[in-house]
Amino acid sequence: MSDKVVFRQLFEKESSTFTYILGCKRTKQAIIIDPVDVTVERDAKLLNELGLKLAKAVNTHVHADHVTGTHLLRSHFEELKTGLGSANVAKSDEKFEHSHKIEVGDISLEVRHTPGHTNGCVTYVDHEGGAAFTGDTLLIRGCGRTDFQEGCSKTLYNSVQTQIFSLPEHFSIYPAHDYRGNTSSSVQEEKQFNPRLTKSESEFVGIMENLGLSYPKMIDKALPWNLNCGVDPS
Amino acid sequence: MSDKVVFRQLFEKESSTFTYILGCKRTKQAIIIDPVDVTVERDAKLLNELGLKLAKAVNTHVHADHVTGTHLLRSHFEELKTGLGSANVAKSDEKFEHSHKIEVGDISLEVRHTPGHTNGCVTYVDHEGGAAFTGDTLLIRGCGRTDFQEGCSKTLYNSVQTQIFSLPEHFSIYPAHDYRGNTSSSVQEEKQFNPRLTKSESEFVGIMENLGLSYPKMIDKALPWNLNCGVDPS
Repeated sequence: MSDKVVFRQLFEKESSTFTYILGCKRTKQAIIIDPVDVTVERDAKLLNELGLKLAKAVNTHVHADHVTGTHLLRSHFEELKTGLGSANVAKSDEKFEHSHKIEVGDISLEVRHTPGHTNGCVTYVDHEGGAAFTGDTLLIRGCGRTDFQEGCSKTLYNSVQTQIFSLPEHFSIYPAHDYRGNTSSSVQEEKQFNPRLTKSESEFVGIMENLGLSYPKMIDKALPWNLNCGVDPS
Repeated sequence: MSDKVVFRQLFEKESSTFTYILGCKRTKQAIIIDPVDVTVERDAKLLNELGLKLAKAVNTHVHADHVTGTHLLRSHFEELKTGLGSANVAKSDEKFEHSHKIEVGDISLEVRHTPGHTNGCVTYVDHEGGAAFTGDTLLIRGCGRTDFQEGCSKTLYNSVQTQIFSLPEHFSIYPAHDYRGNTSSSVQEEKQFNPRLTKSESEFVGIMENLGLSYPKMIDKALPWNLNCGVDPS
């Protein structure tokens, strides 16, 4: 990560979700990626202790396994803007087009549309820090499922190959989840060792069609709440 | 972390233990800190994928909540040497005196004896990378318990104040555990916000005497195994 940035990776155990904080050392403005509702108090306390003021709370996609913390963070940081990729219908202050640059102090994140897990998935790329926040598009030695929320294996395969594997090989990969205790990877490693994305497109599609995954336990609550920016829609 | 080093933080969910890998990019030799028996296959696979050869497997102390992975790692890396602070009776290839420098390729870790949680606790300091691996001596906004294994609150307090809080304030703190989803801190933050170690020595001792913690569930297995370098002593 760049010397200009305070960087923190945080973990929510129940959904195995990673939340990331990037704070500009000069302006003290910060951005949070994929906050979770149940860890908002922890995250807000840490931001305050680090002397950071949250300017933006963004998600990599409309999550199905937890409620986003964006709504609750607003009570701690009134001026924050929420953000999400433009290719989805969820409520959000900002909708990011492909190639948009999110600028917060000296932090600049390029938004790359990387659909496949969901239609609205994006990857946030910090070119100066050499890092990509890939959401569920690319996990460490894995990837997000493609069997709901307009998921499409072919689309995900294409997103990873063209938008993530095209980054410099030393770039770090920071995903939205890990279930085996890994915390980061690199473009080089995933290009070489990802058991799914190193296959041909047709082999990949075959793998994804036969995962036999169970119905996500939080989805019936998480989706309607997250489509409403983390607010109870009822 | 220094550009000369491949750095990885790994997590074992059951005991909430962090394992750290530091690999020398030039010589491809590596050191692992606090490996856990149940994640040894994951760690060995990652080391191999990263092209690293494990030279040393060290512990910050004789753990009471999990069995060390040092013994099992030997079957993957035959030449590895295990290491531990000299102030304890556990079996280990190497016993590190206070101020000893562990040298693995371009990696250099200073061993600082930091007793208090146990008598043999050490902190490994990477001066070039600006990081301290503090074991249970200093946790993020907390510290290890002091009510067993020759634990002593006064001693722990003194260890933190003299051996950790004396490091440059920007140094990162990487503990052996976190139970709230934090992954790192800094000397500056813990000096300012640690709810225990910012108190006077007598207040700290009072806090530690009244934690009312339950008996550690793994201790009856973990201690005898770890005193024997992770090998079943029976």
